Amino acid sequence: MAVGESVFPTLPALEGVRIGVSSAGIKQEGRKDLVIFELDDAATVAGVFTRNAFCAAPVILARQALVERNTRYWLINTGNANAGTGEQGLKDAQRCCEALLAAVTQSDASDKNGVMPFSTGVIGEPLPVEKIENAIPAALADLKGDNWEAAGWGILTTDTRPKLSTRSLTINGETVTINGISKGSGMICPNMATMLSFVATDATVDADLLQQLLSDVTERTFNRITVDSDTSTNDACVLTATGKGPEIVQTRDVQRFTEALYEVMLELAQAIVRDGEGATKFIAVNVQEAASTEEALAVAYSIAHSPLVKTALYASDANWGRILMAVGKSGVVDLDVNRVSVAINGVTIAENGGRAPDYTEEAGSEAVAQEEITILVRLARGGIQETVWTSDLSHEYVSINADYRS
Amino acid sequence: MAVGESVFPTLPALEGVRIGVSSAGIKQEGRKDLVIFELDDAATVAGVFTRNAFCAAPVILARQALVERNTRYWLINTGNANAGTGEQGLKDAQRCCEALLAAVTQSDASDKNGVMPFSTGVIGEPLPVEKIENAIPAALADLKGDNWEAAGWGILTTDTRPKLSTRSLTINGETVTINGISKGSGMICPNMATMLSFVATDATVDADLLQQLLSDVTERTFNRITVDSDTSTNDACVLTATGKGPEIVQTRDVQRFTEALYEVMLELAQAIVRDGEGATKFIAVNVQEAASTEEALAVAYSIAHSPLVKTALYASDANWGRILMAVGKSGVVDLDVNRVSVAINGVTIAENGGRAPDYTEEAGSEAVAQEEITILVRLARGGIQETVWTSDLSHEYVSINADYRS
Repeated sequence: MAVGESVFPTLPALEGVRIGVSSAGIKQEGRKDLVIFELDDAATVAGVFTRNAFCAAPVILARQALVERNTRYWLINTGNANAGTGEQGLKDAQRCCEALLAAVTQSDASDKNGVMPFSTGVIGEPLPVEKIENAIPAALADLKGDNWEAAGWGILTTDTRPKLSTRSLTINGETVTINGISKGSGMICPNMATMLSFVATDATVDADLLQQLLSDVTERTFNRITVDSDTSTNDACVLTATGKGPEIVQTRDVQRFTEALYEVMLELAQAIVRDGEGATKFIAVNVQEAASTEEALAVAYSIAHSPLVKTALYASDANWGRILMAVGKSGVVDLDVNRVSVAINGVTIAENGGRAPDYTEEAGSEAVAQEEITILVRLARGGIQETVWTSDLSHEYVSINADYRS
Repeated sequence: MAVGESVFPTLPALEGVRIGVSSAGIKQEGRKDLVIFELDDAATVAGVFTRNAFCAAPVILARQALVERNTRYWLINTGNANAGTGEQGLKDAQRCCEALLAAVTQSDASDKNGVMPFSTGVIGEPLPVEKIENAIPAALADLKGDNWEAAGWGILTTDTRPKLSTRSLTINGETVTINGISKGSGMICPNMATMLSFVATDATVDADLLQQLLSDVTERTFNRITVDSDTSTNDACVLTATGKGPEIVQTRDVQRFTEALYEVMLELAQAIVRDGEGATKFIAVNVQEAASTEEALAVAYSIAHSPLVKTALYASDANWGRILMAVGKSGVVDLDVNRVSVAINGVTIAENGGRAPDYTEEAGSEAVAQEEITILVRLARGGIQETVWTSDLSHEYVSINADYRS
């Protein structure tokens, strides 16, 4: 299941990035499951990673590579997360990186030799290193600029469709493009990070500025989604600026570039929710009039994580009492429930601590029957607002997670 | 569904408490849905209530009655929670209390006239006051000491069976009895309180001491269970000591009484989990070697709330990677994952950040196939340990909450 149409944009080639895809047969023979990004020598790279303490071996190595600032390759496998694998997992990830470097040394004149590894799939199984080593040459042979869609397919696990987004803008008369892909469907509640997401631009952006932009935009996009409240061990979002296009330095350009980056990353983040495990609804929880960002998010996540709210929305049941319950349990100090109001898709259902006087069950039912639902909560405490996006909780979610060893 | 055998003890009559049950037809014609407890003039009463900010009207009134220390009746209805009902909800609850007092004034010589109301059921619907008023005389006519089992049935909602517990001990050569009943199956993650639970003893206990004992024992019992991480608007647990038996004052007696009270309340709390919505497994999450109670509970609840862990256990899948994920996302500062170990029903599955060397998939599968599962996590950080109890997440859970307007 997934919410909304399954159409996605064609991503143009982007100077300074080449992508190769091949099949290592990690979980399934013949499936494309290995993706290599080759970045230009001049490219800067930024990254944000999971805060789960049990972070995967590739996350540890990718973090190190980020610090060393010599990244030339992103090496991504699906089918195995290489998480919960201890010391051996680190060695295995390292071996894959070395295999990639060994395969390119002859043909590559770059003095950058950093590889950031990324893995996704089942936790706790040893990484099948040889399968990956054997599939690297084919991926390298496949390197080309217009391989974004193939890469989008190549990184999926329980996802039912690829997530792709692109924007372009003009800076100093030159066109700048931002392309991004992501994957993720379950174990989605990114904490300062995201599921796997790979974003590139041909603009020239200083590495420090790039990291700042990525952290800022991640906070407003990937860090505002949840499918099941569980934070993955492998979350990572990386962004590269290949340095082939105009430089982003002027304040006005930074703002416009940030806006385009925001649109790309929001589209990718929302695509993950739309393709959330078992999702039949796409739900935006918008909390307004909060006294602080913290309390706005506490209320929003309390609603977005509530299995009772999510099952009611799955059933298209205008069970607004459960939304009040979730607002009430969110831990906001001295909340005056008599000033809280709740609306669903424009229909005010609750105010003054109870049902809105002109609310009708018909209007409520019509509102929650929609595939796209916005829950608007006004706290009457201040001027802060936040939105998080989530999906519903369906029988299919239980089936997927009872059947699939992820 | 429910976990474990559906046998429950016979609760003896207890001097100073009489119980009456009748049918108000709130949700279903003919179903017993109204319960009245009549407490002796000498009885002391203690209570703990939900911390959900959207607490129900009866919770507000019951809290007030507790402060006034003149409680003579507990008036309980199921089928309607009288929550999210604003000002009208308070008036409705008040009217029910007044109707009860009006019905007993002629026959009752007591100078105590406090009524604590309790409601459970659908949130946001107006309380059907007339139905309740009409059913009060029949419940009063039914008042008798050995009506505990009928009361246990009379307070249920989505529960599949009543929860009853009893213990007795000897104090100064006299027998003291503690009886308790509870209800609850969904919207279970009590916060400093519980779902509805009514506990009584014939001992003589000072009101302040009684409140202290209740708060302490609730913290270790009802506040250690979760079915679905959602905190109800109507949680309440009340305890009365009728003053008909020996007084509990000596330190040694207080300890023994507390121990018996703990056993009764733990049995009631665990009975709620066993009858959790859609439950097929009863799961104890025991976190040991923590540096503080806070972090032990953070880890335990992170596991107990994880939909991915709960669906894996439902499927009897020894998916220990999800347990590591949940430990890792719990927010424990500076957790050294390489020192964490995890065992299920005595089978060590993970240590040193990865799979235990002698772990086999067969042993793991056998462990999680059990109906009663203990997940033991050792953090290697200190000497604190905590246990929480929960159930699994099944298709039936989704069906119940997609179908039932609670």
